[in-house]
Amino acid sequence: MTSPKTARADTGKPLGEFGRIDRYFRPLASGFPGARGLADDAAVFGVPPDQELVVTTDAMVAGVHFFPDDAPGDIAAKLLRTNLSDLAAMGAAPYAYTLVTALPKTVGEEWLAGFAAGLGEDQARFGIALAGGDSVSTSGPITLSVTAFGLVPKGGAVPRWGGRPGDRVYVTGSIGDAALGLEIAYGTLEVADDSARAALLGRLRRPDPRTTLGPRLVGLATGCLDVSDGLVADLGHLCEESGCAAVLESGRVPLSNAARSVIGDDPARFAMALTGGDDYELLFTAAEHAAPALAALSAETSVPVTAIGHLLEGPAGEVTVTDAQGRILDLPTRGWDHF
Amino acid sequence: MTSPKTARADTGKPLGEFGRIDRYFRPLASGFPGARGLADDAAVFGVPPDQELVVTTDAMVAGVHFFPDDAPGDIAAKLLRTNLSDLAAMGAAPYAYTLVTALPKTVGEEWLAGFAAGLGEDQARFGIALAGGDSVSTSGPITLSVTAFGLVPKGGAVPRWGGRPGDRVYVTGSIGDAALGLEIAYGTLEVADDSARAALLGRLRRPDPRTTLGPRLVGLATGCLDVSDGLVADLGHLCEESGCAAVLESGRVPLSNAARSVIGDDPARFAMALTGGDDYELLFTAAEHAAPALAALSAETSVPVTAIGHLLEGPAGEVTVTDAQGRILDLPTRGWDHF
Repeated sequence: MTSPKTARADTGKPLGEFGRIDRYFRPLASGFPGARGLADDAAVFGVPPDQELVVTTDAMVAGVHFFPDDAPGDIAAKLLRTNLSDLAAMGAAPYAYTLVTALPKTVGEEWLAGFAAGLGEDQARFGIALAGGDSVSTSGPITLSVTAFGLVPKGGAVPRWGGRPGDRVYVTGSIGDAALGLEIAYGTLEVADDSARAALLGRLRRPDPRTTLGPRLVGLATGCLDVSDGLVADLGHLCEESGCAAVLESGRVPLSNAARSVIGDDPARFAMALTGGDDYELLFTAAEHAAPALAALSAETSVPVTAIGHLLEGPAGEVTVTDAQGRILDLPTRGWDHF
Repeated sequence: MTSPKTARADTGKPLGEFGRIDRYFRPLASGFPGARGLADDAAVFGVPPDQELVVTTDAMVAGVHFFPDDAPGDIAAKLLRTNLSDLAAMGAAPYAYTLVTALPKTVGEEWLAGFAAGLGEDQARFGIALAGGDSVSTSGPITLSVTAFGLVPKGGAVPRWGGRPGDRVYVTGSIGDAALGLEIAYGTLEVADDSARAALLGRLRRPDPRTTLGPRLVGLATGCLDVSDGLVADLGHLCEESGCAAVLESGRVPLSNAARSVIGDDPARFAMALTGGDDYELLFTAAEHAAPALAALSAETSVPVTAIGHLLEGPAGEVTVTDAQGRILDLPTRGWDHF
């Protein structure tokens, strides 16, 4: 729970590490006995014998992954939700998480209170609790990371690499909202309609991880990941790991009303939606015969599931994007490039 | 495995996130099937039904927890070992870990190679493997965190709060080396003897987590934590959580030859040893009748175990430090103050 330190004892601060943990973080751990009240060196928990633990870690840095003046509750929500989205992409149900905060001394209690409130709201919403963590100070920007734990039936985790030629490609919800929201946030996209503008910014700031649908994909989906680098790039990742190619029928890609109104007939904006990141929808593949089960699941969970293409034999990772007329669509980029 | 991003696509770098993961981190995960080759959204692993998972997180920031020009292999070792020490303090055997790196763009491949080599050496030494993680860039200092997983028999984790009046207080190894090493590193302590100097700096840079002895304390120790804030402060934490007081007989506190030679008759330096942090020895309590078993365990594991005091009824967290003559020793501070 505590870190080594090279700096010397730093007393006289209004509320030190233990005080801040007490006030803001201990309440978040009260629902999870394994957290041991954040009073021990570590958390302790069991995993049911018929289940496995799914573990994911995502970090966010102010100025890189969020705007420094974003509301602390939004930052908390995005931090937790991006991790929950990774769990969902594995077919895992949320269980617990640990949190590391590295905060500059300029971050005061108001920020912390907003941040903790955001975590608390999302804990209730997604049924997850704080199990432990560490808080340190930094001379740099706010740096946050969450390690999230989920549970999945033994052997049931849905891998990225399970897609097979002939499988249909599906995506949940709608695509492109966050990418358009990011352009609005940057001031490079003007949207006159207030409600469309709010909807797109909302999707950027508070993505909606598919934690209900994800675990239901176990045994149905052959491959799955969440859309964080952009739809085309992420389909490329799935294909690469699965050793096949894909056709993405862009005319079938589900768009929200807000996105549709902003995109209009502008091919550049449409490309932005197809290749922008941060949607945190599930992109998955399933055999043809799974279609009726997926339709029923979509109806039951009220999560839209749309078929947008298929996998085929071909160079691993190759994604051909077609337009509504079946012609090949040339995109300026596939999406966020980690390479 | 990947984070959301607000900055736009950043291409043309010599080796991007995926390239760096491929070259430096994927080999560290090859021994752990649950890591899924770092190619999936998350790691997946089971926990044997008779065991529980112990989870701890420690973060380190350049300039706060280590010196920016420390050797990257030393930084890696300290990062991993401080986490392994937390596991040992719970009685848990090392199992796996996840890693988050937030690195400034100035950190090049040479640093990364040294850092990964340090992790690799320690993985072999402590029998642990990389299970997953995230790597992001930052405009601030190098920021690192590890979440470490250990296994402990069900219900066997040793808590901080299990100490009882009458229990003896024990500590492993020797105390104060890291605190003296830190003064040397700061240039505020001159040590002429090269080997003493190297020994003290070595203990600061590469603490020796008690991963072999720790798990053997299950069922023997009543309370345990690792010494990271300073011996007196950490004994205070144990007492506070256990609801009792303690007497610490400073004349019994084990010192290394290097520490003894540097301390000499200087009470200020002795106080430094008693209250300085970063020793990462185990400080634990056990009933009187456990003494023979502890002596045998010490002999078997070649880890020195020394009785240094006892718990008693009294104000929770009160630690009375006595000198060799049984007189009360006044210390300028208890140690690192998080409050």
